[in-house]
Amino acid sequence: MKIAVLGGDGFVGWPTVLHLSDLGHEVHIIDNLSRRWIDTELGVQSLTPMDSIQERCRIWYELTGRRLHFHLIDIARDYQILRQWLADHKPDSIIHFAEQRAAPYSMKSDRHKVYTVNNNVNATHNLLTAMVETGIDAHLVHLGTMGVYGYSSVGAAIPEGYLDVEIENLEGEKKGLEVLYPTKPGSVYHMTKSMDQILFQFYAQNDGLRITDLHQGIVWGTHTEQTQRHEQLINRFDYDGDYGTVLNRFLIQAAIDYPLTVHGTGGQTRAFIHIKDSVKCIELALDTPPAAGDRVKIYNQMTETHRIRDLAKLISDMTGAKIANIANPRKEAPENDLIVKNDQFLALGLEPTTLAEGLLDEVVEVAKKYAHRVDRSRVRALSAWTKDIANRVETDPEGKRLKSVS
Amino acid sequence: MKIAVLGGDGFVGWPTVLHLSDLGHEVHIIDNLSRRWIDTELGVQSLTPMDSIQERCRIWYELTGRRLHFHLIDIARDYQILRQWLADHKPDSIIHFAEQRAAPYSMKSDRHKVYTVNNNVNATHNLLTAMVETGIDAHLVHLGTMGVYGYSSVGAAIPEGYLDVEIENLEGEKKGLEVLYPTKPGSVYHMTKSMDQILFQFYAQNDGLRITDLHQGIVWGTHTEQTQRHEQLINRFDYDGDYGTVLNRFLIQAAIDYPLTVHGTGGQTRAFIHIKDSVKCIELALDTPPAAGDRVKIYNQMTETHRIRDLAKLISDMTGAKIANIANPRKEAPENDLIVKNDQFLALGLEPTTLAEGLLDEVVEVAKKYAHRVDRSRVRALSAWTKDIANRVETDPEGKRLKSVS
Ligand SMILES: NC(=O)c1ccc[n+]([C@@H]2O[C@H](COP(=O)([O-])OP(=O)(O)OC[C@H]3O[C@@H](n4cnc5c(N)ncnc54)[C@H](O)[C@@H]3O)[C@@H](O)[C@H]2O)c1
Ligand SMILES: NC(=O)c1ccc[n+]([C@@H]2O[C@H](COP(=O)([O-])OP(=O)(O)OC[C@H]3O[C@@H](n4cnc5c(N)ncnc54)[C@H](O)[C@@H]3O)[C@@H](O)[C@H]2O)c1
Repeated sequence: MKIAVLGGDGFVGWPTVLHLSDLGHEVHIIDNLSRRWIDTELGVQSLTPMDSIQERCRIWYELTGRRLHFHLIDIARDYQILRQWLADHKPDSIIHFAEQRAAPYSMKSDRHKVYTVNNNVNATHNLLTAMVETGIDAHLVHLGTMGVYGYSSVGAAIPEGYLDVEIENLEGEKKGLEVLYPTKPGSVYHMTKSMDQILFQFYAQNDGLRITDLHQGIVWGTHTEQTQRHEQLINRFDYDGDYGTVLNRFLIQAAIDYPLTVHGTGGQTRAFIHIKDSVKCIELALDTPPAAGDRVKIYNQMTETHRIRDLAKLISDMTGAKIANIANPRKEAPENDLIVKNDQFLALGLEPTTLAEGLLDEVVEVAKKYAHRVDRSRVRALSAWTKDIANRVETDPEGKRLKSVS
Repeated sequence: MKIAVLGGDGFVGWPTVLHLSDLGHEVHIIDNLSRRWIDTELGVQSLTPMDSIQERCRIWYELTGRRLHFHLIDIARDYQILRQWLADHKPDSIIHFAEQRAAPYSMKSDRHKVYTVNNNVNATHNLLTAMVETGIDAHLVHLGTMGVYGYSSVGAAIPEGYLDVEIENLEGEKKGLEVLYPTKPGSVYHMTKSMDQILFQFYAQNDGLRITDLHQGIVWGTHTEQTQRHEQLINRFDYDGDYGTVLNRFLIQAAIDYPLTVHGTGGQTRAFIHIKDSVKCIELALDTPPAAGDRVKIYNQMTETHRIRDLAKLISDMTGAKIANIANPRKEAPENDLIVKNDQFLALGLEPTTLAEGLLDEVVEVAKKYAHRVDRSRVRALSAWTKDIANRVETDPEGKRLKSVS
């Protein structure tokens, strides 16, 4: 297959590119490298020393004889260029990772909110319009997030995309109706993914586009079989307060003797998936496209859920790290359940890498190995969801202590 | 009250501006005049001879001694200017009309799709972000559309915004949950309003913004009490295939001896409201804002529903016009029910202007009076929802005949 990977220079994109190339597909990376620019903006860098995309592609070719094609395109801003690219290359499948993906970054300031909405909505919509306009019949696989749903508010499991509801008609009869499972996004970033859903629903219905939307949990881990083949193929690893996801940040905190920063009671439950499984799920999704005219195919792409305080305990037991309960910069309920169905990927043969097996490797192979590259001052999550909360976070005595320790 | 009317130069905006000014409010119009530019792009013009916004404001001042303040701002592109304006003027209420509002225009080409999404989503989101950032505690009233819902697919009435559903939890108990009534938008334009809903939900929940969303039916009619006070205060009236809404187009067709163009069997049902009632509803909504922390208040702003073929019959009976059933450029079911609740506005005292009373006035006072200004070649709706449909519309023998007649 000829596959276009939009956002193929990113944390999930790069290992996906290598995995698909390894399977023998012709892989094209489209990326505007905005994520690298954001590193510059924030003055942070990947924990792992990461090469340029051009260099990475060169190394992969030397190692395997397989070419990766890199195209610098901003899919949110350069609609015409994207359309021309699709018309010229006619990929069989398109994997769309190309969005601003950090909730804290999306809440940093009004400028960051505006950027995130503008970038993500236009990226997805430009792609859909260009697919229709060029008439290519590609299967689109998009990365969404479990976070669009908020939480299991009534103790029910979150199904894979759709909900059957009953509506009473004028004659007083109850009629069944299938609807998109209602979303309640908790940040501007998550909100954009909720809007993406509406875009997909429309373009599948109006234009018969074949779309798979993967509602992914938080990805943890760094290496995949392919990224480990050469030092310079290493995947990025974000540990900073904006882009570092919770588990990766705990690992780094443990490695540099910084207390594990648990927000509030740590009662929020989140869904997780290892990077190896994430890449595998994308392969499985590519292999089972919906038919034209089908509704959007939605999977929950996660393998386990954990409460934050339990994760902190796990890592603390493993490493001896202290735990600090600090003010939560996010606006969310202090305790939340999250129960998720993931039957579809299990049925397709996914064999999850569990935290229990994979975690120690990460501590030794990644966190400890690169701990000398950590900037301690960037470890705390400080982007607050509202100005009131920002105030609370600023004046939190425990948080202050962490700042001065660091 | 100090009221900012975003999109105050438009078809619904202008009469709203005059109505609110007449009630004694301090009214500020913010508009980028894009609608006038689109007239230029399409080579069409308002049926009614419409003055510049500056001239209109001057006439109103001469007539009433009340000042209208006009500010040329593109709220989708100029976030910083919008924010500064809000910080400087601190309006008590904001009415948001400023979006690209024609479904056919939004489906014209890929460029028009991209423009509509970009303009509408960024307009609404910039406004919300700027309201949060400046900390002004204004009540936001937004114009949405009934069209986000598609149709009453199970013969049930469409409630005002919310639906109670039952979800089975892990213990097998059914639990109630209130959700946004699920949307199924039928065009790129309607899709943007469906996305607006998600923006509102988030900003009401995260930032306590007070938001009212009016899901409006198709507006018909031209004059209000205020626009009739002077020739140069006249409202715009769109009759072209892109911006002309169905009833206004039938009126013009009748006035110029052009057959009433009914798409397919004309079995689609649509919701309607007279411009006078639209303006009144906005006043009522302004008077009853939600409290901070409340969910978004959603009204269905319409007063009657009709099947297109029944409307055509009504106008044909009244004027003697012929009816032509032609290929439908839209992608929709040939026959559709639409049953809508509008209890909230009725409870607030709205007294609807019915089609039965208002229609003849429109024929005489508007359609016949300005018929000489009509460009017959622009009367048909030609923007097709897909390329296949465009083909069908092009080759429709009845449609061809209309083209040569015109
Ligand atoms: N990492 C996670 O834990 C996680 C969890 C759930 C969902 N996801 C989703 O998976 C996808 C990939 O996540 P990631 O962690 O690899 O993110 P990332 O930020 O590392 O990668 C995204 C890539 O997209 C590129 N990009 C962004 N906007 C673009 C544009 N307009 N044009 C072209 N390229 C653009 C960036 O430069 C970057 O290389 C995202 O959509 C994200 O929302 C990630
Ligand atoms: N007319 C109807 O039948 C109808 C029905 C349902 C809902 N609505 C909604 O009511 C609102 C007003 O409708 P209308 O018929 O008056 O439309 P209109 O096109 O006549 O007016 C919209 C106004 O907004 C302005 N505008 C658009 N984008 C802008 C931007 N980025 N910055 C500043 N100004 C901008 C335009 O210049 C125009 O003056 C729209 O949001 C529409 O979706 C209208």
